[in-house]
Amino acid sequence: MTESDYGAWMRAIQLRTEQALANCLPESGIVPERLHEAMRYAVLGGGKRVRALLAHAAGLVTAAPAERLDAVACAVELIHAYSLIHDDMPCMDDDVLRRGKPTVHVQYDEATALLAGDAIQTLAFQVLAESPLDAAPANQLAMIGLLARAAGSRGMAGGQAIDLAAVGKSISLPELEVMHLHKTGALIRASVLLGARCGSAHDASVLESLDAFGKKVGLLFQVVDDILDAQSDTATLGKTAGKDAEHNKPTYVSLLGMTDARDMAENLLADALDALRPLGAAASRLAELAEFIVQRRF
Amino acid sequence: MTESDYGAWMRAIQLRTEQALANCLPESGIVPERLHEAMRYAVLGGGKRVRALLAHAAGLVTAAPAERLDAVACAVELIHAYSLIHDDMPCMDDDVLRRGKPTVHVQYDEATALLAGDAIQTLAFQVLAESPLDAAPANQLAMIGLLARAAGSRGMAGGQAIDLAAVGKSISLPELEVMHLHKTGALIRASVLLGARCGSAHDASVLESLDAFGKKVGLLFQVVDDILDAQSDTATLGKTAGKDAEHNKPTYVSLLGMTDARDMAENLLADALDALRPLGAAASRLAELAEFIVQRRF
Repeated sequence: MTESDYGAWMRAIQLRTEQALANCLPESGIVPERLHEAMRYAVLGGGKRVRALLAHAAGLVTAAPAERLDAVACAVELIHAYSLIHDDMPCMDDDVLRRGKPTVHVQYDEATALLAGDAIQTLAFQVLAESPLDAAPANQLAMIGLLARAAGSRGMAGGQAIDLAAVGKSISLPELEVMHLHKTGALIRASVLLGARCGSAHDASVLESLDAFGKKVGLLFQVVDDILDAQSDTATLGKTAGKDAEHNKPTYVSLLGMTDARDMAENLLADALDALRPLGAAASRLAELAEFIVQRRF
Repeated sequence: MTESDYGAWMRAIQLRTEQALANCLPESGIVPERLHEAMRYAVLGGGKRVRALLAHAAGLVTAAPAERLDAVACAVELIHAYSLIHDDMPCMDDDVLRRGKPTVHVQYDEATALLAGDAIQTLAFQVLAESPLDAAPANQLAMIGLLARAAGSRGMAGGQAIDLAAVGKSISLPELEVMHLHKTGALIRASVLLGARCGSAHDASVLESLDAFGKKVGLLFQVVDDILDAQSDTATLGKTAGKDAEHNKPTYVSLLGMTDARDMAENLLADALDALRPLGAAASRLAELAEFIVQRRF
């Protein structure tokens, strides 16, 4: 497959995810209008949709129907979007720019940002509960449990708490890894697994290979994020650049230096691709996506 | 049934709900410790557990197994608890006292309060997805959808947004009713319906009677809350008294005056009891609970 094949696939998934998100969010004319407007502002019109892409690419491995993947893609992108809104608030990272636009609490106000994040999280679970994802509803219940565990206090939200506690402290590389396995890794792994579980095959070894891939890609994503934050300008990132250093946050770059951080990214990519090997050609989009994450030209 | 029968039942449900919540919340020794500690602080050791009581009492109408009702009771109490944490934050009501204790952001910090609320909401959906609630998993999916709709932007979170927009404005009685039907009513109705749906009977007319009851009780609860806020002191309430007037919030007392607000409560109670009539003796705990809400001596 050529890179332009991949590019076309990626843009098609990004487009259909945007459409699916627009359809599942309440219209901004519905009461309470300001809240619904803020929810749409936060979720639509931006973002690389990495989690949606991972879900769709993993679904190709198990021949999952695209409509099911749209629902899963919405759910993981909604969880991600809600976490960004709350993470940007003054009591957390206090950031004013996200995806090239003012953050939700700047564009609206803090209370609206708080409620919009809350309601977007709720909507993620509504979408998973109300969309047909599996011929067996029991499997669908398990998928909801999987997303909840990935998003909750022992997953993403827990990772943000670990992150908060680490600001201004010197932490070790293994501690940094634990933080990121929670903060970004859990939802990325869930995106891969939920996509795969939309398919008919629930072969344990397939899910194991995919989970190993998801774990490596989650860390890879974070290492690349740290590298980009250290070397890019705000205009390119679409969010405030250099804020990790400014906030005295430990990153792979601050712990390893830029050269070793880049080596680490290369190694994680190799590990991620290794994990896909048993899956053969069905996993080629996942492989391309992992390579794309390293290049980050979305 | 005598009142002391009711009192014993109520205390037994409060106790088993407390135990069920303690079991479903992660231990405070689990990483991230501070987040888990804050979650337990927010949820445990207080509260009247009105929503749990409604779920259990509605479950008696449909002969629902108590273990299923425990799971539903946990889920609705977790949603309620998360909403209180966020509602008390400085950008919302900015309150320092809840259930006789410092609010979560005062006891911990704002970021921890934000994340604890987020993770408690997630846990509510995890509990509903992972506890056996119905022999047919498809019904369980519908129950998760029902809770999400009640909690989200067109339910509870939406009601809080309407509430925010109303501060300092003069609104009409119908507008106040719309706000409360969202803000407190939606979750109270969901508590009744979820409890009932844990039972084997899914008779549409039973659910309709229960929903009519839930709608009246939700408003009743709010009217009584407004009366208590206007006439009680902080020590009795366990939360800051008189804050509605202080924040210039429209209430049933400010719109109707105390006498008419009390009449309204009496009328809503009568309507709620009327709605239960077709259900016969099986609904007696629900009737007692409605009367108890008016007396508010939990």
